[in-house]
Amino acid sequence: MKLVRFGAAGAEKPGLIDADGKIRDLSGVVPDIAGEVLGRAGLERLRAIDPNSLPLAPEGSRYGACIGRVGNFIAVGLNYADHAAESGMAVPSEPVLFNKAPSCIVGPDDTVLIPRGSEKTDWEVELAVVIGERASYVSEAEALDYVAGYCVCNDVSERAYQIERGGQWTKGKGCPTFGPIGPWLVTKDEVDTSDLAMKLSVNGELVQNGSSNTMVFKVPFLVHYISQFMILEPGDIITTGTPPGVGMGMKPPRYLKPGDRMEVSIAGLGVQRQAVAAG
Amino acid sequence: MKLVRFGAAGAEKPGLIDADGKIRDLSGVVPDIAGEVLGRAGLERLRAIDPNSLPLAPEGSRYGACIGRVGNFIAVGLNYADHAAESGMAVPSEPVLFNKAPSCIVGPDDTVLIPRGSEKTDWEVELAVVIGERASYVSEAEALDYVAGYCVCNDVSERAYQIERGGQWTKGKGCPTFGPIGPWLVTKDEVDTSDLAMKLSVNGELVQNGSSNTMVFKVPFLVHYISQFMILEPGDIITTGTPPGVGMGMKPPRYLKPGDRMEVSIAGLGVQRQAVAAG
Repeated sequence: MKLVRFGAAGAEKPGLIDADGKIRDLSGVVPDIAGEVLGRAGLERLRAIDPNSLPLAPEGSRYGACIGRVGNFIAVGLNYADHAAESGMAVPSEPVLFNKAPSCIVGPDDTVLIPRGSEKTDWEVELAVVIGERASYVSEAEALDYVAGYCVCNDVSERAYQIERGGQWTKGKGCPTFGPIGPWLVTKDEVDTSDLAMKLSVNGELVQNGSSNTMVFKVPFLVHYISQFMILEPGDIITTGTPPGVGMGMKPPRYLKPGDRMEVSIAGLGVQRQAVAAG
Repeated sequence: MKLVRFGAAGAEKPGLIDADGKIRDLSGVVPDIAGEVLGRAGLERLRAIDPNSLPLAPEGSRYGACIGRVGNFIAVGLNYADHAAESGMAVPSEPVLFNKAPSCIVGPDDTVLIPRGSEKTDWEVELAVVIGERASYVSEAEALDYVAGYCVCNDVSERAYQIERGGQWTKGKGCPTFGPIGPWLVTKDEVDTSDLAMKLSVNGELVQNGSSNTMVFKVPFLVHYISQFMILEPGDIITTGTPPGVGMGMKPPRYLKPGDRMEVSIAGLGVQRQAVAAG
């Protein structure tokens, strides 16, 4: 099942993708793709619906972020060995965690804004995990029971803010529009995360071309691990790190500028297309 | 105006404190002390109400966290020169920011749980700023226009998770119950943050006895500064750092254990009283 949120920014409606790839309107069934709707019972309820019984969304509807009311947007750093190397950092012995401000979340095709004064805005294609059930101190073996599904995330990052401004990464990770999410939440029953092709191109040039098979810490371990430190709640997002090919790792480094265009995809999870503009 | 949330955990109602110090029930007026209710128009509407016209809350009602649906719980590190010294860290040249998981927020008198396996759970009395209006790229001069008010926060911290587990502080800051907030949100018109006595005692022994007058970066600068990196939204909380006297800074270090009791207060903002138990 592919769940979406569609319509004007800030007024998105819940929907699902039917067999023809069209958006069907779920707003008569649930208020949002958020919170308890993402739990086991909520997803079962949606699965029981015949998509053909739902109204079609207007043609050309904008895709919003596929999850509403995200409470905690957690990110895993340096989770691909080759990316750690290109960043000049060691592969960590346990996951590095940081936060993206939930207010940075936007739709998959919304414009990405370069922060005022920024010179080092960078891209990162990532596999994002969406939490479906409250998770605290869960085992690795049970971890996937707490996952609703997966989506694409572009973990847009300002490298000077992240690294050169005083010690913690959060400053460079949550700037406005730095969290394109979607187009779809694909429920976990339809996704094998072990070897998903992950691609990001800038102005048509393929700069990231990796696979989830080189992740250092895998999804079940990450959910287990994070749940030892904090309660995960339905609608929380964990974005799980990026494969090599970010701008910071190029020689010389290359960063986004107004007018650039990004295309971001993970096999089976859809494609994001973002214009870049001054913030 | 002192705003509160009262009642059973997870089912709190909004309220305000009347001239006799009693809780008046606002649930017939607003759904929660959260989001847009914290904006200028929302607070003006509450201010226009005669408290005596509101029903009294049941005697002995539990205080919940004074803010509901917190979207982003931001914390400032090392913002008191003496605390930086006791932590063995330099006073930063600009604010250090990190995040506490919103899922750690509890009421001011709720039990604080020591995480499973933790040996270094510590306390921090802090002045918390509650955002009332969406703030992005705001000037220092205008920053307070975006603030709803202030409350007490105990920034409970697990020092091994924070410092010894892989580079970013977030792991030691958002464990379940690590964010007691309240008892009251005091609106900014009633608070001069320049010299507030800040105290924390453990089992009756005064361990923190400071003042907001030794803050390195003051509230208007912090709101301005953070808004350069992320959009602040109504109901976001910024906890602004702790004065000296945390357990990690003692010789030898001293940490919380089950059965301990904390009392946490800031002049004019009320008192928190927490029992400590195993998680």
